[in-house]
Amino acid sequence: MDFVALQYLLGMAGTVAFAATGVAAVAPKRVDLFGAVVLGIITAIGGGTIRDLILDVPVFWAVDLNYLWVALGASMLAFLAHKSMTRGQIYRSMLYLDGFGAAMFAIQAARKVMDLDFGLPLAPILLGVTTAIGGGLIRDVLAGNTTLLMRRDIYAVPITLGCVVYAALMPLFPGNAGTVGVVSVALIFGIRSAAIRWDLKFPDWLATRPDNNGL
Amino acid sequence: MDFVALQYLLGMAGTVAFAATGVAAVAPKRVDLFGAVVLGIITAIGGGTIRDLILDVPVFWAVDLNYLWVALGASMLAFLAHKSMTRGQIYRSMLYLDGFGAAMFAIQAARKVMDLDFGLPLAPILLGVTTAIGGGLIRDVLAGNTTLLMRRDIYAVPITLGCVVYAALMPLFPGNAGTVGVVSVALIFGIRSAAIRWDLKFPDWLATRPDNNGL
Amino acid sequence: MDFVALQYLLGMAGTVAFAATGVAAVAPKRVDLFGAVVLGIITAIGGGTIRDLILDVPVFWAVDLNYLWVALGASMLAFLAHKSMTRGQIYRSMLYLDGFGAAMFAIQAARKVMDLDFGLPLAPILLGVTTAIGGGLIRDVLAGNTTLLMRRDIYAVPITLGCVVYAALMPLFPGNAGTVGVVSVALIFGIRSAAIRWDLKFPDWLATRPDNNGL
Repeated sequence: MDFVALQYLLGMAGTVAFAATGVAAVAPKRVDLFGAVVLGIITAIGGGTIRDLILDVPVFWAVDLNYLWVALGASMLAFLAHKSMTRGQIYRSMLYLDGFGAAMFAIQAARKVMDLDFGLPLAPILLGVTTAIGGGLIRDVLAGNTTLLMRRDIYAVPITLGCVVYAALMPLFPGNAGTVGVVSVALIFGIRSAAIRWDLKFPDWLATRPDNNGL
Repeated sequence: MDFVALQYLLGMAGTVAFAATGVAAVAPKRVDLFGAVVLGIITAIGGGTIRDLILDVPVFWAVDLNYLWVALGASMLAFLAHKSMTRGQIYRSMLYLDGFGAAMFAIQAARKVMDLDFGLPLAPILLGVTTAIGGGLIRDVLAGNTTLLMRRDIYAVPITLGCVVYAALMPLFPGNAGTVGVVSVALIFGIRSAAIRWDLKFPDWLATRPDNNGL
Repeated sequence: MDFVALQYLLGMAGTVAFAATGVAAVAPKRVDLFGAVVLGIITAIGGGTIRDLILDVPVFWAVDLNYLWVALGASMLAFLAHKSMTRGQIYRSMLYLDGFGAAMFAIQAARKVMDLDFGLPLAPILLGVTTAIGGGLIRDVLAGNTTLLMRRDIYAVPITLGCVVYAALMPLFPGNAGTVGVVSVALIFGIRSAAIRWDLKFPDWLATRPDNNGL
């Protein structure tokens, strides 16, 4: 199997992970089959859709419907299996798979933005992060959950870091896109895995200190 | 009156219904005139705007400003009349009108997507549903209401079903777009009307069963 | 310094104000550095991004990355300084600066829409308001705050009024774009300043009267 096919398969695996964790994230709120499936699909394709709208290119899931079929199927399966999915070991594996999907999506998006020479050097980072977390943000907003941005998880920071590294290394090693991509994905996934494994959170000194008389 | 003119008038009637129910949905929260009108307009044009952005075609309300004028006028009237609108019989009639508007919007959107040969066969269904419920979702998020996706109403499922039927029948009866459209709208409106009439909800077995140790 | 350069500088000042008030608006909720910076950037560029997507023109911050750099820098500074920023006099100055930024953004957007002959005469008003308040709305939704639309602040109404005045005067004085723009910005900023100074809110009779049996 060549590198392109591998990348494609990994993209589909990321789609499955996003859809399934999307359903798992809303399942505790007693959501019906329709809501669960829609929120699963939105988690999987929402971020990339915003990216493509901003890039003004055809949305990826209309170009290749497989993303939509896979998101639909994975969301339905996740609905059926939600009871077992939210249980300890399985949910934890899903978190790792989701972290890997986020890393893949971010770096693939950064690459797409750089290939289009769009708003270098900031846009690849901004849209890489948007692609990775945008779908989850929309899901949380629609489901009435606290969004990632207010949860102090170590999730988006490694993604940002990976996109920065990718955007910095690519102009230096233009012939080694594959290697730079793998390094960047590994960096994101490594930090995210450590955060899952040891339940790391943003430290207090890197968060605002509300003084209770607020605004 | 020919079929096209009738369709146009029904589209305007749907716009009125969406704007008015949009205002009615936020009125219990003590919203001011400006907020009510903006949320009414968003309810009426939000879904179609997302659809047109994804299709990368000019947004419908910029092509034909009547949609915007009608949404503006209907929202203002609904603000003035909100006290009476939220009362029993009138509100119930609004629900039926809203259900009819949703059916119209969904099938018109599915048709628009199919005419553009965009992401067949899934995109007409996805964007039909998006057009019908997108505006209401944005309204609920901005107003701090629980969104449709978490309410277990029988609202989006008949819409999805109608879009599936439309997308399935159109390739079989390409010369009968009108009839297929009417059948699909009738199917959606029929099921939705039954759900309003007998206050039907998604049954428990089609919803997730949170086990209280959540995520 | 010529008028164009002055406008550009004022646009950047508006960006700083939006990013900083964006961070200040979420700081009372104990947000981490990453979340604060992302929400500050979204506040600054969110509204203009929606406008450009609807206009189907390249998003402004990809055309001129300075907007993104300035929003990034201002958000970081605001995070560092959030403790002092939320205190009385400084926060109040920020409110005025934010009001000025909103006025600038709205009229610049109205002008951009009119220059494109897009959906006249309604779209310049709708997209002027969207540009001025869109970023703040997305921020509030992502942060779980009550949005502007439900707060009865005198914020969006002067913006709407200013855009209406601008859209009405421009066809009458096509050679005096600068003057009409200054008058419109002054009108918005004047009313908004009065609202900040005397803490004006929408009066009860211009808000819905929930009767507690709601919907």
